[in-house]
Amino acid sequence: MQDRLAHTAARVEAELDRLLPCPEDERYRLGEAMRYAVLGGGKRLRPFLLLESAGLFDVPEDRAMRVAAALEMVHGYSLVHDDLPAMDDSELRRGRATVHRAFDDATAVLAGDALLTEAFGVLADPATHPDAEVRIKLVKGLSEAAGLHGMAGGQALDLAAESQAGDLMLKDIIALQGRKTGALIVYACTAGAELGQAGDEAYRALAAFGDRLGLAFQIADDLLDHSGSEAETGKPVGRDADRGKATFVDLLGPAGAEEKASDLLAEAREYLDLFGPKADFLRAVTVFVLERKA
Amino acid sequence: MQDRLAHTAARVEAELDRLLPCPEDERYRLGEAMRYAVLGGGKRLRPFLLLESAGLFDVPEDRAMRVAAALEMVHGYSLVHDDLPAMDDSELRRGRATVHRAFDDATAVLAGDALLTEAFGVLADPATHPDAEVRIKLVKGLSEAAGLHGMAGGQALDLAAESQAGDLMLKDIIALQGRKTGALIVYACTAGAELGQAGDEAYRALAAFGDRLGLAFQIADDLLDHSGSEAETGKPVGRDADRGKATFVDLLGPAGAEEKASDLLAEAREYLDLFGPKADFLRAVTVFVLERKA
Repeated sequence: MQDRLAHTAARVEAELDRLLPCPEDERYRLGEAMRYAVLGGGKRLRPFLLLESAGLFDVPEDRAMRVAAALEMVHGYSLVHDDLPAMDDSELRRGRATVHRAFDDATAVLAGDALLTEAFGVLADPATHPDAEVRIKLVKGLSEAAGLHGMAGGQALDLAAESQAGDLMLKDIIALQGRKTGALIVYACTAGAELGQAGDEAYRALAAFGDRLGLAFQIADDLLDHSGSEAETGKPVGRDADRGKATFVDLLGPAGAEEKASDLLAEAREYLDLFGPKADFLRAVTVFVLERKA
Repeated sequence: MQDRLAHTAARVEAELDRLLPCPEDERYRLGEAMRYAVLGGGKRLRPFLLLESAGLFDVPEDRAMRVAAALEMVHGYSLVHDDLPAMDDSELRRGRATVHRAFDDATAVLAGDALLTEAFGVLADPATHPDAEVRIKLVKGLSEAAGLHGMAGGQALDLAAESQAGDLMLKDIIALQGRKTGALIVYACTAGAELGQAGDEAYRALAAFGDRLGLAFQIADDLLDHSGSEAETGKPVGRDADRGKATFVDLLGPAGAEEKASDLLAEAREYLDLFGPKADFLRAVTVFVLERKA
């Protein structure tokens, strides 16, 4: 599993490198910031989910790889903007300076904007799929997963929660995280079905798998933030607690949170039954989620 | 012309109001910031160009109106992010507080992000055009006009120019503005041809029209910044000069800049010959550009 994850990460890195060449004129600083934001690390969990899901339907890898890269651009944009002084004001990400620290605030705003914009261009390109209907569904799905009803909406709930710390209940955090991190993970799991023009049953199973997995992933993140070390996670730990943000660990305790994540992952695995042994690496992801250290 | 512009502006306002309902949960603050950013004013020049161009090909108005609204979301997003403290640090826009002043910096970052994201969703929706091929071209075109090769790239050139004030030559400013403001105006002029599935000749004529018009529009903006009053323009004037940004007026003088704009507008009008009297309101825009006071 670790080998396959590393292998996928290397291929995604190469695809992003190819899709984001650095401009040779005065835009090079923006281009470098965009590349800095998405190259050089990360688990590439979302691309892995996308490629493995696409593999269930024998989607040609070059097509799935483009969507994986677009998804990673959107994930990268969200991290760059989240890290801004106006937002979380983070200095470290994956063990190195965040984009606004390595460049400057204006370039970071712009790099995020441009990554988001380019991601839609990658999806819309005929190289992603010969059928325009498939490409347009990928575009619409990404807009929904990243916009007011998805990631940006979740971020807004998070901002609102910061100004009323302590009031969040479990269902509120689930709703918040479902949008903030869950929507893009669900997209990662369903885009392969879209590319493979799979039937409704397969699509819905993967959506449900992604939903449970995404939530478990967030709980695992909270557990890491609670107990991990900065050296392990590559970013400062305990920051959520510092700012009075309610986490799953606060509400359920470490043991309760771990149990909840385990239950969700078991549920996630059930949705994979439909796909037999082809889904073995997706099953392996559900084990990896709770074992990871960063 | 003023009547028709005002009438179009009112209809675009209604469409944006319809497409951006305010969420009823804790995301309402983000929703309100998005609405604040795009509702309540502006000349709506880009939507006007789009609707008039679409009219050349008898495109149903509800379709053109959706693309016009998407375009205005992208224009709105760019203004919100440009106004941020990290960028131009502007307090006033269209005579009222900018989004980060009326709300806060984090909400402004997020509102821009969400507007950009939703714009692609509006284009991708089947209500925009029944043919997915047409919708995907609109998506790809918008990504190109707004991304690294278009608006965001132009903004990067602008940031680079600020740190090396005085070095810009006329060709540099033309290249910068062609990306920063021109690309979206060209998109406004060509999206109607895309919606109408017009031939190459018509598409290229409208692209050339938009290119010349966009540049003239920027020169007129520089002239207004040079000579207009804050009461007329709704934003602080003379700011470009304060920050040592080279403008067309610096390089050509007020009379030279006005002559250059006139020449470009005459050129723009020639590209409309193809369309006969149907293009009379697009012709009228070329007159309006130099007469406007805000």
